Amino acid sequence: MNAVFPFSLIVAAGADHARILLDMLIVFASAKLLAEVAERLKQPPVVGELLAGIAIGPSVFGWVRPDDFLSVLAELGVMFLLFRVGLELKDFQLRKIGCTATLVAAIGVVVPFLCGWGLMFTLGVPQIEAIFVGTALVATSVGITARVLASKGLLQERASKIILAAAVIDDVLGLLVLAAASSLAKGTVNLVELGLTAGLAVGFTVVVAQWGTKTMDRIVPHVEHRLQAAGGEFTLAIALLFSLSLLAIHAGVAAIIGAFLAGMALANSVGRRVHEMTHGVTELLVPFFLAGIGLHLDLSVFRNPLTVTLGVVILVIACLSKFLGCALGAYRLGWADSARIGVGMIPRGEVGMVVAQIGLRLGVIPAAIYGVVVFMSIATTIIAPPLLKLAYRDLVKPQQAEVHELPRVG
Amino acid sequence: MNAVFPFSLIVAAGADHARILLDMLIVFASAKLLAEVAERLKQPPVVGELLAGIAIGPSVFGWVRPDDFLSVLAELGVMFLLFRVGLELKDFQLRKIGCTATLVAAIGVVVPFLCGWGLMFTLGVPQIEAIFVGTALVATSVGITARVLASKGLLQERASKIILAAAVIDDVLGLLVLAAASSLAKGTVNLVELGLTAGLAVGFTVVVAQWGTKTMDRIVPHVEHRLQAAGGEFTLAIALLFSLSLLAIHAGVAAIIGAFLAGMALANSVGRRVHEMTHGVTELLVPFFLAGIGLHLDLSVFRNPLTVTLGVVILVIACLSKFLGCALGAYRLGWADSARIGVGMIPRGEVGMVVAQIGLRLGVIPAAIYGVVVFMSIATTIIAPPLLKLAYRDLVKPQQAEVHELPRVG
Repeated sequence: MNAVFPFSLIVAAGADHARILLDMLIVFASAKLLAEVAERLKQPPVVGELLAGIAIGPSVFGWVRPDDFLSVLAELGVMFLLFRVGLELKDFQLRKIGCTATLVAAIGVVVPFLCGWGLMFTLGVPQIEAIFVGTALVATSVGITARVLASKGLLQERASKIILAAAVIDDVLGLLVLAAASSLAKGTVNLVELGLTAGLAVGFTVVVAQWGTKTMDRIVPHVEHRLQAAGGEFTLAIALLFSLSLLAIHAGVAAIIGAFLAGMALANSVGRRVHEMTHGVTELLVPFFLAGIGLHLDLSVFRNPLTVTLGVVILVIACLSKFLGCALGAYRLGWADSARIGVGMIPRGEVGMVVAQIGLRLGVIPAAIYGVVVFMSIATTIIAPPLLKLAYRDLVKPQQAEVHELPRVG
Repeated sequence: MNAVFPFSLIVAAGADHARILLDMLIVFASAKLLAEVAERLKQPPVVGELLAGIAIGPSVFGWVRPDDFLSVLAELGVMFLLFRVGLELKDFQLRKIGCTATLVAAIGVVVPFLCGWGLMFTLGVPQIEAIFVGTALVATSVGITARVLASKGLLQERASKIILAAAVIDDVLGLLVLAAASSLAKGTVNLVELGLTAGLAVGFTVVVAQWGTKTMDRIVPHVEHRLQAAGGEFTLAIALLFSLSLLAIHAGVAAIIGAFLAGMALANSVGRRVHEMTHGVTELLVPFFLAGIGLHLDLSVFRNPLTVTLGVVILVIACLSKFLGCALGAYRLGWADSARIGVGMIPRGEVGMVVAQIGLRLGVIPAAIYGVVVFMSIATTIIAPPLLKLAYRDLVKPQQAEVHELPRVG
């Protein structure tokens, strides 16, 4: 076809877009296809979507490589996912479960850090490298867990709410550990700076969590009345989602924390229409988040058998330390809920990869360790959903078992 | 804040995303704000959204510059818009109105081309430059018209259906004119190549328009039954939308033609859920399309008074020639419908800009003419919605006047 030159010229004018549309089609279709396969094998669909990313990525077929555009779509996908989850949480008060959630988050940060650092220190790597591996083990990616729980209609369970609250706190703590580790990598820890970082992150989260809902309860009812252009509630919802996500980034925490808080702030006030409209956006974008994680797997570092061993050991430690730490934090709730919470906090996902990237940029971890940490991040993310299904099996009501969409709020 | 270096390091890790999220927030919020202002001034909201793009773009405040990411969002926005419009057209048979639509498209291509070429030829510019200006005047951007008609619930009117069908045919004809002009610019016209281009474009459009609906009527009912993963219909809809948009690009026509045909193919078979989910995506993305057009305005070429005069003259010719050509093609339907159709075809939007870009790349039009054509594309797009409101005023029922969303199909 390229022989037809006026034609190829016109295609060239739209060629960049064509390439992006093709990438989008491959990612979306393969994710949905493997989700269906996973479903038929009685596995959580998210596992299929993660594996789709690995399959089409550089490690296997190489049809799609992770690029800027796809990574923004992935970020938007997990933002909308957490926004939707926040929207479902009517009358969710962080304060009520705050104590347990803080314990879960804190012990769930300390234990993995010490285990990761201890292992690397024992192996004799430089101190700063050991600290970075410990830091990467601290990360928690709540996106996967939220997706699994939402699709099974389990967001309202006690354990689920604690997982969500603990993930928010975990992100703030993770920021502090990362800030401290980064300072160390640059040679010095300035406690004043660290305090400012902490204050900003905590301040943002607490203020929005505390007053967000009240503010929106007052504003939203006026929006549909006062505005003459239609869709005022949806417009407000999207504007709040983007504003709080941006503020979250500038406060040092992840964009999804802002997105989650935006959803929570609107949960009581917006109507069914906003739920359905954001549902469409979420279903379109989430496959880019899930497959996007898998896209980053690079198996080439595993040519060295020693690296393979290290990867497996770190993976086991990552799973056990997070599980035990978080379960310990929730021991008062009994074994069943502790286990659910422990398993729910295991996935490291994109957060672990960000830590690894910062370590690589600062030059404190070598490429092999970077590869191992990315592998650990992805593998924990794939392992968690089946464990989660197992841990929650007593709570899944038969009629709910086939609800794969977020419940609609009337 | 940048004094806190571990913090700024972490922000830097997400800095690219922060910039993009900020751009998205500015575009979305300003478009919606000016849509509200337009509404209060009794103007169509799309005019506000277009003006928002001009306001935040390089011509006025310079807060946002058109970049790759925003241009892909714009493309996705107009794709989803036309997909939604296609979805609304149950039992829409291109064949029934094909004859009138073909006349509208054909005369609506010939008259503007001759007028544009004639004007430039009279002014004594090189032949090929005159041909390119004529070609730019041929383009029709159906997105704006579709948005206005859909928001007023007027898609089912006879004139509206003819506009949509004529826009599809216009795009194919426009491709041929552009292919011929591009060949001429390179020195030779190969009729075999031109024939192949025509065959591919016409073949794609006819085959999908003819058999798309029948095929989907057979496939869709099985999807929700057979698939175990939820949301099968939505997945199929999105996959079809992307596939046909890509095929359209490779057949030489615009991605939105494929998107429109994909929507039409699914109109009879998918349920209400898919309508609502794609509605959310559309409402999120369309502001990027509308404001994105305005972003491209560059007023710097208008420092020269001669260019201003030329810009105004070309704008007047662009409006009149398209209006008269298309109205003439529809004269059998009476004055009212002819006027509606003529006005509906006026906007050149992103299509006119693509032609100008190709001319610039081939080196056959100078920067000043490029600026004039871009100005003409944007100005026709801003002028059309109020005229459209006027032309359709007898068909807007009082209770429909405030329906600003696509009607829901139960």
